[in-house]
Amino acid sequence: MEDARLPYLLRKENISRLEGKALLIGDRRVFPFERSFVRCTTIGEVASAIRGMVTQGGGPLQVALTAMRWVALQSEGAPGLASLAPYAEAARMLSQARPTNTTMKRTLQGIITRMDRHLVRHPDETPVGLASFVNRMVDGIEEAFDAKYASMSDFGASMIADGRGIITTCFAEHSFLLSVAKARDAGKRVCVYVPETRPYLQGSRLTAPSLQEMGVDVVVVTDGMGAHLMQDGSVGLYMTAADLVAMDGTVVNKTGTLANAVCARYFGIPYVVFALSPDPLQPTVAVDMVEERSGFDVLVCRGVPTTSTGMAGRYPAFDVVPPSLVRSIVTPQGVFAPSAIGTDWLACEGTADGDEEI
Amino acid sequence: MEDARLPYLLRKENISRLEGKALLIGDRRVFPFERSFVRCTTIGEVASAIRGMVTQGGGPLQVALTAMRWVALQSEGAPGLASLAPYAEAARMLSQARPTNTTMKRTLQGIITRMDRHLVRHPDETPVGLASFVNRMVDGIEEAFDAKYASMSDFGASMIADGRGIITTCFAEHSFLLSVAKARDAGKRVCVYVPETRPYLQGSRLTAPSLQEMGVDVVVVTDGMGAHLMQDGSVGLYMTAADLVAMDGTVVNKTGTLANAVCARYFGIPYVVFALSPDPLQPTVAVDMVEERSGFDVLVCRGVPTTSTGMAGRYPAFDVVPPSLVRSIVTPQGVFAPSAIGTDWLACEGTADGDEEI
Repeated sequence: MEDARLPYLLRKENISRLEGKALLIGDRRVFPFERSFVRCTTIGEVASAIRGMVTQGGGPLQVALTAMRWVALQSEGAPGLASLAPYAEAARMLSQARPTNTTMKRTLQGIITRMDRHLVRHPDETPVGLASFVNRMVDGIEEAFDAKYASMSDFGASMIADGRGIITTCFAEHSFLLSVAKARDAGKRVCVYVPETRPYLQGSRLTAPSLQEMGVDVVVVTDGMGAHLMQDGSVGLYMTAADLVAMDGTVVNKTGTLANAVCARYFGIPYVVFALSPDPLQPTVAVDMVEERSGFDVLVCRGVPTTSTGMAGRYPAFDVVPPSLVRSIVTPQGVFAPSAIGTDWLACEGTADGDEEI
Repeated sequence: MEDARLPYLLRKENISRLEGKALLIGDRRVFPFERSFVRCTTIGEVASAIRGMVTQGGGPLQVALTAMRWVALQSEGAPGLASLAPYAEAARMLSQARPTNTTMKRTLQGIITRMDRHLVRHPDETPVGLASFVNRMVDGIEEAFDAKYASMSDFGASMIADGRGIITTCFAEHSFLLSVAKARDAGKRVCVYVPETRPYLQGSRLTAPSLQEMGVDVVVVTDGMGAHLMQDGSVGLYMTAADLVAMDGTVVNKTGTLANAVCARYFGIPYVVFALSPDPLQPTVAVDMVEERSGFDVLVCRGVPTTSTGMAGRYPAFDVVPPSLVRSIVTPQGVFAPSAIGTDWLACEGTADGDEEI
């Protein structure tokens, strides 16, 4: 079940939901200035919304799950036997929309694989039967994610010391926000410093307002101030999510993460990463694998130009943080040193995966 | 003489000039979107403009010199003997307007001290005679600064390697821009990565357009991307100005400088600082000496809100960089290791100071 402490942005119905014939996606590009939704009527539109950063972080995964329910709803009335094709096509299109999000890709692949196995076992399955199978599977996946957020944030909260400031980068979502809220609820004094995370301002727009809504002390700073706050003692802990964790403990996360991780190491401050699901298929990550977005994005802020016309910009969207800069990786299975991800964590994960089978 | 390569922003008449009864200050807050001037009719208004960040970096020093000429112009017609009082009062008000700028403060103190000595030697000096003395003194100071920029940028240009990208922070003005231009004119391939330098965007608004105007390759990035560019090899040199260099080699410069300096050290990239005038009266700098500005500034970008209402922000305006992170300090007297500032540099400076006497 969803934690009641979650802020507006992270409640499932505000990430994505079905309404009439449409799939609605909460528009994180305009939050907190507007609480609006992008209305999609085809999977192509959903993929295009994901590509256009309507949602980000863990958002695309939730959208993908809602999209599977949507395909189920649309397929129920089809004549004849159940077909995997529309589900597989949707999964393919969504996975391609955000290549960095391998959790979404692997979750969708898992769904398609299990549907395929189900159809092999039940060759006479009806469209309604398959739709129902998909909905139950998605129910199970959503419950499993809620349980993972709960256990990760229990671990996270225990790592937060009373009165020690925390800095983050971008929008670290469920595990981080719940860790902070649980630490606060346990009576610890907590203050989170949130770098604005240019160019899209996920820190200022998503993280800070969410913490504010949750009643947590929060201070917005610019992306260059992390080192200053570590030096003057304002912060003593660095916590982020990860877009990807490889088997050697390499962490991929939003641009700006590497600078703070290097500074945290220099000032002797632990860097703790929340990883819902390190990627067993990714032995490591090379810097040149990382996606670059349009350099134009860094030349504007909320649509307002920040420099003269004709200027060049560059936007390497993600940082690759070497495992040597990471103190701990918090997973649903426990807290691991980065060097233990490919061994100890992988051993736990193999077991856990079996539990999710329907 | 002013270097003809200097861009619009750094030409003396665009920093400050006298026009009719007013002192005009080039408004760096709105550049490059507008090329406008703030019109001051009293020294109080000039001090208030400096306090309000109409100009910054080396700007206040140039404004202070123009203000001395202005006081001279206003005092010329006074009856009776020459009086130091209006000059001393102006110097006091201007020095207090930007406490971090000790170069301005020491230059103004030097002017007042020399005027005082002049009046002791010439007890019958007229207001016109004192005004003329001040103007000749300011002429000499301006020429001396032009000569210092020329020699610092010769040193700086020699430290720039062909084809190796450079990153900077904020607006490093004459010495840095001329170093880059001279390196380019010497046939080296030069590309400068400019972090936007939130919240005031001095990188995007001042440095990048100035380099663009000078025909130098320039790329704007956000303040969190320095580490990424060092890791992927895009940059191999970090160069900034300094608001203050202490005798132990500690460097004070715009927020964001420390993070890049720490990352430069981590990635083995030299950090080179341009210091027009290390401060012999400052043995070191403690982090808590640094000025904090209104936290509200980090909650807006060019007047547009970046987060929800009622949010807290923090704006520690300057970073204190320990000497261990600095490779070299470029001064008018030569290039020094930070550890040599309090010894070798101070020895040269003692000699140089004598040259400036009239």
